[in-house]
Amino acid sequence: MSPSALQLQPAIVLHGAKDLHTEQRTCWPPREGQAQVAIMATGLCGSDLHYYSHGRNGDFVLQAPLVLGHEAAGIVTAVGPGVTNVRVGQRVALECGVWCRKCRYCKDGRYNLCENMRFCSSAKTFPHLDGTLQGRMNHPAELLHILPDSVSYEQASLAEPLSVVLHASRRVNFQKGQSVLVLGAGAVGLLACALSKASGASRVATIDIDSAKLEFAKSSGFAQMTYCPPRQERPKTSEEALRRAKEGAATLLDVFKMPEGFDVVMECTGAESCIQMAIHCARLGGKVALVGMGTPNPTLPLSAAACREVDLVGVFRYANTYPAALALLASGKLRGVEKMVTQRFPLERTAQAFEMLAKGKDEKGGLVLKIMVGPTY
Amino acid sequence: MSPSALQLQPAIVLHGAKDLHTEQRTCWPPREGQAQVAIMATGLCGSDLHYYSHGRNGDFVLQAPLVLGHEAAGIVTAVGPGVTNVRVGQRVALECGVWCRKCRYCKDGRYNLCENMRFCSSAKTFPHLDGTLQGRMNHPAELLHILPDSVSYEQASLAEPLSVVLHASRRVNFQKGQSVLVLGAGAVGLLACALSKASGASRVATIDIDSAKLEFAKSSGFAQMTYCPPRQERPKTSEEALRRAKEGAATLLDVFKMPEGFDVVMECTGAESCIQMAIHCARLGGKVALVGMGTPNPTLPLSAAACREVDLVGVFRYANTYPAALALLASGKLRGVEKMVTQRFPLERTAQAFEMLAKGKDEKGGLVLKIMVGPTY
Amino acid sequence: MSPSALQLQPAIVLHGAKDLHTEQRTCWPPREGQAQVAIMATGLCGSDLHYYSHGRNGDFVLQAPLVLGHEAAGIVTAVGPGVTNVRVGQRVALECGVWCRKCRYCKDGRYNLCENMRFCSSAKTFPHLDGTLQGRMNHPAELLHILPDSVSYEQASLAEPLSVVLHASRRVNFQKGQSVLVLGAGAVGLLACALSKASGASRVATIDIDSAKLEFAKSSGFAQMTYCPPRQERPKTSEEALRRAKEGAATLLDVFKMPEGFDVVMECTGAESCIQMAIHCARLGGKVALVGMGTPNPTLPLSAAACREVDLVGVFRYANTYPAALALLASGKLRGVEKMVTQRFPLERTAQAFEMLAKGKDEKGGLVLKIMVGPTY
Amino acid sequence: MSPSALQLQPAIVLHGAKDLHTEQRTCWPPREGQAQVAIMATGLCGSDLHYYSHGRNGDFVLQAPLVLGHEAAGIVTAVGPGVTNVRVGQRVALECGVWCRKCRYCKDGRYNLCENMRFCSSAKTFPHLDGTLQGRMNHPAELLHILPDSVSYEQASLAEPLSVVLHASRRVNFQKGQSVLVLGAGAVGLLACALSKASGASRVATIDIDSAKLEFAKSSGFAQMTYCPPRQERPKTSEEALRRAKEGAATLLDVFKMPEGFDVVMECTGAESCIQMAIHCARLGGKVALVGMGTPNPTLPLSAAACREVDLVGVFRYANTYPAALALLASGKLRGVEKMVTQRFPLERTAQAFEMLAKGKDEKGGLVLKIMVGPTY
Repeated sequence: MSPSALQLQPAIVLHGAKDLHTEQRTCWPPREGQAQVAIMATGLCGSDLHYYSHGRNGDFVLQAPLVLGHEAAGIVTAVGPGVTNVRVGQRVALECGVWCRKCRYCKDGRYNLCENMRFCSSAKTFPHLDGTLQGRMNHPAELLHILPDSVSYEQASLAEPLSVVLHASRRVNFQKGQSVLVLGAGAVGLLACALSKASGASRVATIDIDSAKLEFAKSSGFAQMTYCPPRQERPKTSEEALRRAKEGAATLLDVFKMPEGFDVVMECTGAESCIQMAIHCARLGGKVALVGMGTPNPTLPLSAAACREVDLVGVFRYANTYPAALALLASGKLRGVEKMVTQRFPLERTAQAFEMLAKGKDEKGGLVLKIMVGPTY
Repeated sequence: MSPSALQLQPAIVLHGAKDLHTEQRTCWPPREGQAQVAIMATGLCGSDLHYYSHGRNGDFVLQAPLVLGHEAAGIVTAVGPGVTNVRVGQRVALECGVWCRKCRYCKDGRYNLCENMRFCSSAKTFPHLDGTLQGRMNHPAELLHILPDSVSYEQASLAEPLSVVLHASRRVNFQKGQSVLVLGAGAVGLLACALSKASGASRVATIDIDSAKLEFAKSSGFAQMTYCPPRQERPKTSEEALRRAKEGAATLLDVFKMPEGFDVVMECTGAESCIQMAIHCARLGGKVALVGMGTPNPTLPLSAAACREVDLVGVFRYANTYPAALALLASGKLRGVEKMVTQRFPLERTAQAFEMLAKGKDEKGGLVLKIMVGPTY
Repeated sequence: MSPSALQLQPAIVLHGAKDLHTEQRTCWPPREGQAQVAIMATGLCGSDLHYYSHGRNGDFVLQAPLVLGHEAAGIVTAVGPGVTNVRVGQRVALECGVWCRKCRYCKDGRYNLCENMRFCSSAKTFPHLDGTLQGRMNHPAELLHILPDSVSYEQASLAEPLSVVLHASRRVNFQKGQSVLVLGAGAVGLLACALSKASGASRVATIDIDSAKLEFAKSSGFAQMTYCPPRQERPKTSEEALRRAKEGAATLLDVFKMPEGFDVVMECTGAESCIQMAIHCARLGGKVALVGMGTPNPTLPLSAAACREVDLVGVFRYANTYPAALALLASGKLRGVEKMVTQRFPLERTAQAFEMLAKGKDEKGGLVLKIMVGPTY
Repeated sequence: MSPSALQLQPAIVLHGAKDLHTEQRTCWPPREGQAQVAIMATGLCGSDLHYYSHGRNGDFVLQAPLVLGHEAAGIVTAVGPGVTNVRVGQRVALECGVWCRKCRYCKDGRYNLCENMRFCSSAKTFPHLDGTLQGRMNHPAELLHILPDSVSYEQASLAEPLSVVLHASRRVNFQKGQSVLVLGAGAVGLLACALSKASGASRVATIDIDSAKLEFAKSSGFAQMTYCPPRQERPKTSEEALRRAKEGAATLLDVFKMPEGFDVVMECTGAESCIQMAIHCARLGGKVALVGMGTPNPTLPLSAAACREVDLVGVFRYANTYPAALALLASGKLRGVEKMVTQRFPLERTAQAFEMLAKGKDEKGGLVLKIMVGPTY
């Protein structure tokens, strides 16, 4: 056993809402089928922020201290018995969902729906599985993906949210030459734009209420067309909300000169009004990918979907996406996504990183898209 | 020109809500590309009933007198210039949607979404196109489908609602060996059951609030399992409705011993509570086909769909289904569907037929599933 | 540990061509993740026969003594640590391909293509993995499928060849209402017919040079149309062979009154002439499933395929088929397939069973379709 | 009627092998549904060259004088009655296959397989339909596609071969992140490379025996990897040919560092040896698109395809591709394809253009990829 394998390693542990502790933990040698990875970069995600801010994420409540983080890459420092797919010294991305390989979904290639899934940094299952905001961790070697030489740790961390939009794009069966509208230009929305462009979309448009994000989408070349809808008072009734969504969609299609609607709409906000708009923005026979979560029980213009054969397609994480995501990052087709990393924090300043993410602006009022946390920043 | 072609023909014309007139109209010889068909059977459909009862169907309001009927079969009595696909004397089913053959949807094989669709018996476009509740009518020959010898006129009329469920089944990519739940055991729901069974479903279950329909579903062999949910008071709040739908779904899956849910749910009622239940009744990664219309803007447990990758798939009429529907009817695999014809009326008693359909029971309280109207009854 | 688990168990071991030994072997208790199964029925298959007759199957040569048999069902007699999906006393079908669950194909749901597949009774990998022609065997519990009550052991053994045709049917995306031609009416071909019928094929036709098999296909109701092509001298040149295949196909389509060809052709013979005919028998845009193996390097009328967009689709074993196969068997839709079991032999008379299979006729000249071997015959 | 519509127009008419005449023909005003187009650019294609050189193309023999050319764009100069989709003065690409809109393939969206297809410049149907190597021609308005402003006539002419590879890419269900090997780097092969790259291929590799074409593929950025196989003597036997193809494929995968093979192989040569190699170059479960024609009856390593589930997918022309092809050209994602136009000839020098195409080199030995012919060169 390498001596370093038993060194104490720092772990950033969440004990409750806004209650992060840095602990020194023994990192045991990897067991059969595991590899030990020194984490070099972890991107912070909205679900991490939910746990940090509220001690819960929707229905899933912290039941024990938990290490957050699941958008990560690192370097292999040790391998357990029987591991043949990675070697010490290799740079890898970590796929953080540990699937059972036995249930019907795993057998069927849809392991994101695994009935026994345990996901690092999630409180859905108990005991919780710790995430990547730590120094070294042991992880099933089969869930490590070797990085092409040209892919950095930060890019590799982005392979996780990229996997989400890649999976969404597959689920709606996106085809080159189609037009794509992305609702919400946060990190996930921007990646949806970049991926669509790299996959031969004829047009990529995005909207957001934050014009700085739209500016980024445009200057990075991810989206050709952007629109910042005016802020409005909250609608007083459900009818008014539906009417406004319909009018809003009409305005949008007018602005974008797409009177027939878009072939694919990627809804990345989770807001009820956006889900409603998404249906009206899709063309006859088009598709809406439900990437954003947030409104469990929205009122929807369902007839406007069904009578126009606009399908509402759910998207839950991803399966079999990492190889393609890393290949796309290596190919240069997603050039510019690394600029989405707007801030970097050392591991011990994770709490500050979360505070900035919650605020949505940096000290100087600058854009916060993706914050990276790692030992070398 | 055959002399008969200019004979006066009866037409049952709707002038307003419940205002049917029998008119004698000249049937002109068929023009280029048309064939003249003596209609032998027309099945009455829910949308016909809407026009009859209210003078409108949803947003589509009668703007001129209209002949209803679009589930029909007959015999070719004359053909116009250039017609090569049918001959006088052939028995045919009429496909009632006249598509433009030019728009992107027509080119793409999804002609049910044709931008310029004119549909016999619908008031959506103006001038309206008359339906089949008449003696003879001219119709584009390309939309006539020759009946196999073993298929009766009544069975051929059922090819229309059968087309709807065939299209639905294709849209959700139903595969042999899958389980199917059909919500609503009316004419369309029963056909969904029969088709699923004939296509190799491992299990077919259906529910309805009318136990007589369930009895029919079971005795005909279309469904293996049926359930009649208890009637309840209307829920007072949206939250209560959602909670009840979730509980109702759990009860249903329990009764049917399908704890994981069904691979495919065919929602054929259009009721908000059923659409909500449908989502909870589908298994992880399953599909809900939205066949029934009726609630334009329901509140939906969308997270329960999206996080489980249960897709909501719209179904609007059908395309390229008639050949397969007639082949299935001829193959004997749908044996028993003709028993769905519970009543027959002569053409001149169409008003009485509609009244019975509206009532939902015949004079003796008997089941009304599909009423046929034709000249020889 | 149950005492019976250490009892000596008979195993029918192949040492070389036609060299079968009955050995008494200790059956060790099942290890972690394994279950012990008392095999009740094994169907003999053509690849088993190849090994028996020649000590090899194509490129795969016996390198050590091997137990044949991979179409099997039995009863669970013990379970190893960690097994939760089956219990002692449950009746199960054995899925005989042990896949690695780690390679890209396993992750992707196409585990039949697993790079590290070890298949019971195959000499492809070394050390070989023994098959089911023995008393009890330990097998990964995850590869056992619990039998519905109404499915017999023999039917469950047929789930294996049924899986092959189910997989083939999925690969060509067979849809209800389509027409199917099956070339070769042996066990696999007959199952292809039965499955197609149960899945809503509009027409099922089959050909074979053995009219007794066609008689079976017809009397069992699996195929509506059959044809026995006349025997001919071998063609002298490749050109003559191609010409004859084209003419043969034309005759066939004429006999079957299918001038446009079939939507799907299932080639189950592996004969060069049949593969050639298959292409000509498929309609424009149709599909040919290559189920039979046998001619490694045929000359093919490829332009006739490519210019008509007739796709040649390879079929190698199966993945994710057992649940659907067993559900179909339980549903009664495949009624009659058990009649394909034409002979039964006790385990110790396996050699005689193979000799009969090789001969293709029983003592009285009767049809040999599927021979079952098991301890209780 | 515009006076110009009756002007005499030049037409380049093929009377037999190498027998081109320039004729002055009256261009009649467009009939109902037609538009008159002044052709601005026609790309010469291999099938045109076959007719020019031999008076036939495979089985299709010239039966009357014929105007060649079907890769074309122009400007609308008049419209017939009932035309609403184009106006005089609009720049358009011509889709040259006139489909019937009535047969099952047309209804089903696969109009490239139309049973009654008449294709401009093809001698398959009689009377032949003239192609685009003329001044003005009348064409069904529905088959004209309006050019985006940024798309030139020459680019629009390339929309035709681009449609072929787009259709191929759809037929093999190419997905972003997959690797693509293109056999043959002629005009079609280069477009296959460019399209794959624009659609998010992880790797694009191509081979050709002409290193100048490979140089073009690389310098244009269409392919990342190229290889020029050494010329060899013709194999003496079919066995030797098959062995060489297998070895050649192994060398190729080695050179390209793709030991597992490519996800998609686009065979664009039609050569028997390449079709054989294509099968060996596809990965397990991969696809081979048969784009090139040329060897009607090749000997194929079919077991190597079937046992590895490598599907052989035919590609015949295209359907519903022009809108996507023009959108892709307008999006800038195919930047550089216009450099494939290596020579330009005025209409009256069409014969010289064909001679150069036949020779494959220009006067100075320069590369010939796509020759354009038009009135303004």
